[in-house]
Amino acid sequence: PKALADMGVDLQIRGLANSRRMKLIAPGGVDISSSISLSEPLSEAHPVFNAAEFVNHILTSNVPNCVFVDCTASEDLPKLYSTLLERSIAVVTPNKRSISGSYSSYQSVKNAARRRRAPFLHETCVGAGLPVLSTLTDLVKSGDHVLQIEAILSGTLSYIFNTFSAEISFSEAVLAAKKLGLTEPDPRDDLSGLDVARKVLILAREAGLDLELSQVSIDPLLPNESLTWPLEQFLSRLPELDALFEDKRASASDNDERLFFGAAIDCVKKTACIGLRSVALDHPFCALRGSDNIVAFTTRRYAAQPLVVKGPGAGAEVTAAGVFADIIRIAR
Amino acid sequence: PKALADMGVDLQIRGLANSRRMKLIAPGGVDISSSISLSEPLSEAHPVFNAAEFVNHILTSNVPNCVFVDCTASEDLPKLYSTLLERSIAVVTPNKRSISGSYSSYQSVKNAARRRRAPFLHETCVGAGLPVLSTLTDLVKSGDHVLQIEAILSGTLSYIFNTFSAEISFSEAVLAAKKLGLTEPDPRDDLSGLDVARKVLILAREAGLDLELSQVSIDPLLPNESLTWPLEQFLSRLPELDALFEDKRASASDNDERLFFGAAIDCVKKTACIGLRSVALDHPFCALRGSDNIVAFTTRRYAAQPLVVKGPGAGAEVTAAGVFADIIRIAR
Repeated sequence: PKALADMGVDLQIRGLANSRRMKLIAPGGVDISSSISLSEPLSEAHPVFNAAEFVNHILTSNVPNCVFVDCTASEDLPKLYSTLLERSIAVVTPNKRSISGSYSSYQSVKNAARRRRAPFLHETCVGAGLPVLSTLTDLVKSGDHVLQIEAILSGTLSYIFNTFSAEISFSEAVLAAKKLGLTEPDPRDDLSGLDVARKVLILAREAGLDLELSQVSIDPLLPNESLTWPLEQFLSRLPELDALFEDKRASASDNDERLFFGAAIDCVKKTACIGLRSVALDHPFCALRGSDNIVAFTTRRYAAQPLVVKGPGAGAEVTAAGVFADIIRIAR
Repeated sequence: PKALADMGVDLQIRGLANSRRMKLIAPGGVDISSSISLSEPLSEAHPVFNAAEFVNHILTSNVPNCVFVDCTASEDLPKLYSTLLERSIAVVTPNKRSISGSYSSYQSVKNAARRRRAPFLHETCVGAGLPVLSTLTDLVKSGDHVLQIEAILSGTLSYIFNTFSAEISFSEAVLAAKKLGLTEPDPRDDLSGLDVARKVLILAREAGLDLELSQVSIDPLLPNESLTWPLEQFLSRLPELDALFEDKRASASDNDERLFFGAAIDCVKKTACIGLRSVALDHPFCALRGSDNIVAFTTRRYAAQPLVVKGPGAGAEVTAAGVFADIIRIAR
């Protein structure tokens, strides 16, 4: 709050909601520094959440510079974005579904934002709080042309391939990640690459490609058969896959290379793909630690050496910070 | 221009100047896409440059959303920034002198910008077009606390220490950099570290430290004596310094380390220093190529692993692009 006052920013909260309950706050709002109303959880005493009613509350308040912040993974809320933006209400969200749906729905959100000059900021959809999308946007809007984007975009898969070694088998690395809470309850949700594919699609679209999710080519990590096993069976049979991955690891190692789960967008050929890759040990992609993400932009301006952004790309705290930075950016 | 129209941005040029001549453009301006007036160089036919007259032209035009862009290395123009900002005119500049003077002059510019909510953007002062200062600003403004900043901020010194090896002596590396046009006419202007010290000061201040340039501690690269030699003599006697640097290189190499000219800011102890350092070969600072810069932010949020920005940090094209990105950011 002190920093906000220094910036001349007066943030007021006009409404709160989770998937079950909501709280609509009367004009005048509640200062963000009065933590009372924020720390009080939404309870049975509050009205049942109703998206239309919530949005109507915002639309009818006539408060200037409204920002709608969607921190859910809902598929439904993004359908409201165009309506909000058309009414000049800014939208801030880490919800990847908002812009990884059909290209036409992506365009309609972007067009509404442009038409009304209403900010639509979704920095945290890729790399959490890391300045990935803002960097890409600045490059494109200042007239650069992106040629290629190479990236590691999953903290979970990073951790698994940073742990997997001659001493620690693939299955042990997966189970270690699961134990640390880094994977989804079913690790196949991470190993399928779908989450990475959504992030790649978002990057590709922001770079100017009109791709659909189905056009992001995924080299599957896991044999098809293993996808049909019940979870318990998958976890117990995971060691059966070790030989397959050990072969790949050893052959990379023989070439002084290391495995990673990477993404590549070729803006000239207009293709995007993700899958297991290997690079030489002195490649920057080998220097990642823990759940680091890395994104390397090769552009007309950054042709000889790419512009690189790297760092922790997942986690509640850095994501929340990135969402807040987007809100502050609008306020400024 | 097409991209500008897409963004709903209408950029008009109201005046141009170099250190000798100026051109004041009448209301209505010249569209940035009409390249005629821009490609026509300022000639003897134009009035002699007069800063007061130039600024007065802007102040009296009553055009909304004015931006003053200072792409000089002048010490005088930054003195006008406060006046411009106080009149709500935005300032964009890669001129390091603008904010590496006394802390009180830095503060008066920042205060004027804040009071009038007039953007003062100087992203290109550090790392050229790389998103270094904007990333730092977003971290600080969204409530993070910077603990430490480690960086390599000179493309020239990067090149020299990336070239210097068991086979290529220090003097050969310096002369190679000079031959490529990477150094100032007198390479001691780079080797003194003063340019790096200014960048470090800017980073430290943006991170919240109230340091003066004299408080940036510089471990001098060169023996004091060599600073007094005339340029010709310095260049011819440079090989005399080879043994000194070879000792350092060899002893780093014996420890599987490599030399680099680095900068470190400790925001807890409130200190900033620059000098020759060495790190293990698998350290990210060893993976730099050519004239790459790198900046690693360790903060409360990015505590275990830093947030890193890396890439070419010098050159006319990337700097111009960064200046233009700042202008576009204001227009948006």
